Amino acid sequence: MMHLNAFTQITPHSQAIGQWKHPEDQMASGYLDLDVWVKIAKTLEKGCLDALFIADIHGFYDGYGSNRDAAVRNAVQSPAVDPMLLISALALNTKHLGIGCTYSTSYHPPYECARAFTSLDHFTNGRVGWNIVTSYVKNVYENGLGEMLDHDARYDKAEEYMEVVYKLWESSWENDAVVQDTVKDIHTDPSKVHEINHEGDFFSVKGPHMCEPSIQRTPFLFQAGASPKGIDFAAKHAEGVLVRFDSPEHASKRMKLYKDKMESYGRDPNNLKFMMTFTPVIGETESEANKKNEEFMKYQSDDGLLALFGGHTGIDLKGLDRDKPLSDMDSDGMQFIAKSREGMTINNMIADMPKSRMVGTPAQIADILETYYEAGVDGFNALTMIQPGSHEDLVNMLVPELQNRGLFRKKYEASTLREHFFGKGATLTTPDHPASQYRNKS
Amino acid sequence: MMHLNAFTQITPHSQAIGQWKHPEDQMASGYLDLDVWVKIAKTLEKGCLDALFIADIHGFYDGYGSNRDAAVRNAVQSPAVDPMLLISALALNTKHLGIGCTYSTSYHPPYECARAFTSLDHFTNGRVGWNIVTSYVKNVYENGLGEMLDHDARYDKAEEYMEVVYKLWESSWENDAVVQDTVKDIHTDPSKVHEINHEGDFFSVKGPHMCEPSIQRTPFLFQAGASPKGIDFAAKHAEGVLVRFDSPEHASKRMKLYKDKMESYGRDPNNLKFMMTFTPVIGETESEANKKNEEFMKYQSDDGLLALFGGHTGIDLKGLDRDKPLSDMDSDGMQFIAKSREGMTINNMIADMPKSRMVGTPAQIADILETYYEAGVDGFNALTMIQPGSHEDLVNMLVPELQNRGLFRKKYEASTLREHFFGKGATLTTPDHPASQYRNKS
Repeated sequence: MMHLNAFTQITPHSQAIGQWKHPEDQMASGYLDLDVWVKIAKTLEKGCLDALFIADIHGFYDGYGSNRDAAVRNAVQSPAVDPMLLISALALNTKHLGIGCTYSTSYHPPYECARAFTSLDHFTNGRVGWNIVTSYVKNVYENGLGEMLDHDARYDKAEEYMEVVYKLWESSWENDAVVQDTVKDIHTDPSKVHEINHEGDFFSVKGPHMCEPSIQRTPFLFQAGASPKGIDFAAKHAEGVLVRFDSPEHASKRMKLYKDKMESYGRDPNNLKFMMTFTPVIGETESEANKKNEEFMKYQSDDGLLALFGGHTGIDLKGLDRDKPLSDMDSDGMQFIAKSREGMTINNMIADMPKSRMVGTPAQIADILETYYEAGVDGFNALTMIQPGSHEDLVNMLVPELQNRGLFRKKYEASTLREHFFGKGATLTTPDHPASQYRNKS
Repeated sequence: MMHLNAFTQITPHSQAIGQWKHPEDQMASGYLDLDVWVKIAKTLEKGCLDALFIADIHGFYDGYGSNRDAAVRNAVQSPAVDPMLLISALALNTKHLGIGCTYSTSYHPPYECARAFTSLDHFTNGRVGWNIVTSYVKNVYENGLGEMLDHDARYDKAEEYMEVVYKLWESSWENDAVVQDTVKDIHTDPSKVHEINHEGDFFSVKGPHMCEPSIQRTPFLFQAGASPKGIDFAAKHAEGVLVRFDSPEHASKRMKLYKDKMESYGRDPNNLKFMMTFTPVIGETESEANKKNEEFMKYQSDDGLLALFGGHTGIDLKGLDRDKPLSDMDSDGMQFIAKSREGMTINNMIADMPKSRMVGTPAQIADILETYYEAGVDGFNALTMIQPGSHEDLVNMLVPELQNRGLFRKKYEASTLREHFFGKGATLTTPDHPASQYRNKS
């Protein structure tokens, strides 16, 4: 069976910059309204999605014209509030939907990370996921959040960070530590609650964990970095990766990189689920889909999209001729992008955003997804153009098509996030996962 | 009108150690259940309380026998999860009740603090409060949460911390920064979103704040420290203080310390609300109240209560004769405590816990509260013996008595936390408050 996540952020929009102007979009202010998010979560649960996935950011994109003006003006992931603080409201109104969020190993001590995710795993009854990021927005360090490390050092630190949180989640409390013996007057047996006494290059953490074990112990672990260090990290730690693929062939080639690495770490390559990002624009007919898409194109904010691009790539496109082929531009970055499409211009790029858009009928989009699924992609991570509208289209139009093809679940078989991905009963990390080596070891 | 908060923590119990064994208490496991907390919040809102106040802790109490065994065994604020992550679930199911939580200036960067409270103030529509603590559990530093500073240095750091968060909350975004102009394609006017460029002894924070202004901007500020530095800090920054008083005379004397300091800072002494902690045990008749109290006494966990005492005072009582008068003991701390009551023993102390218990009929307890209210105490902070039971007794028995006496509101007149304390329309800090000096300054 295919897996399906929805993707969002607690901001007017994460990717489809400018759609806050669309008459059907409710997020220009609604991103702050709990009722709007509850409605979205309920819609996704009706569609039996694996999870709602919530991105996060801790600074403004200032990679367009070397300032944040385009990002602020066009609401490019700005203003934004903290996704973790929303989760309990969604948990209360759903029973099965997984809820994942981004949390950075650069900005918070591992002890706090462990406590936050255990808290949420309790509140959601085992439905929480963590998208591990090492963070990439440079100006964040100027806000007093940790020290600026280079890309590789960030991953080295993240590696030790994972060791600390695994120890807190898996080894600090034994399963039967909480006894609630009213006769002997013992709530928790102190002999079953252990210090972790971690001493490393980056962290010293004594423990014990403050929280009793949650259903999943370690939250379901996502990762999205695609650099060599990112792939290495995912191959070691991730249970799901958020990826972008250009074609089924590209997908096969990329996935092999992760799977080979996984084998070198002694992990079963099937224990990493590849979730490919796409942005469906769905109509009952092809012309309806195209009409929707044209409508969306009217609301794109070009400068905002280029600010997002600059934030992701570090390439500042301000002031360049938007109709000139990228291949004619004097920039390594431009040359790199130009390679992927002959004669591409900045305006072509803008028209392509958000990337991986799929415009068509449910059957047409399902056909495309199926080609990727057959190439070994495990599932899909659905971005939206507008909210809640695009979530509703996904659930009301695309999901039934996938269900009719026997590709997607018609009801939930379990109620924890890890079980959605690994099957009923699989609430804990698989034995080959590095977290598992700490389990029941003390 | 009197003010009334309820006090709790996301743990089996914050103060009434041992009551998890009481047949009517639901918190031994229920502290992890969102539905239990929602029920409590709805009960408190039915009683028109100002706020539910949620304490927090980041380490175990190990001040009894120099280890954590008594704390773990007796569930002394352990296990515990993060209160901030619960708030959105409560916000969704209430419309007026304020929701405050403890957050430490020692463990989180101020930029994150500002973001978290603005997020919650949005999600609650202006109902969030912050109990500012500088943190006192020593072993927390061994968990990699910031550096260990001495008491005074912690307050110096907290002072600068407040300056940073005020700048982020009050000066970074102008009121009319978010314009949502669909014609001009401007979501937010970049000229109205400002860096704060804070450079101080402890923090460098450039900004801007990532969040658009919430209704209260600065959350309603509570404080509970009672040391000279704590009083000084409260006099400068707090809008409400959580205090313990032994008598109306003691209250007057203590309150004068705060009020004198406030004047030295140019603040109106009426702009600090004194919330006195009490633990009501309420019966329709005196004998019913006494019977309830005797039942509670059966479930007290003595060692757990002494672990809590050790955590609060730093005095380790393990191994001492519990029937010996404290005045005969060779310890400065003991001598200090012994002064407050002739012939007091450790067993007397235990029988008195949680402190400030008031056992009686609604009328009897209201009489006591009224004497404090007449002495200038603004309101009361209700601890519980069991949950949700004690919250229900408070709302169903004591609140109606106070309402009938014209001492407490019968309905909410506003819907933000600051308005509950300062009156309709008072959503922002008063002009004499230090946060206000940063408002609209840039």
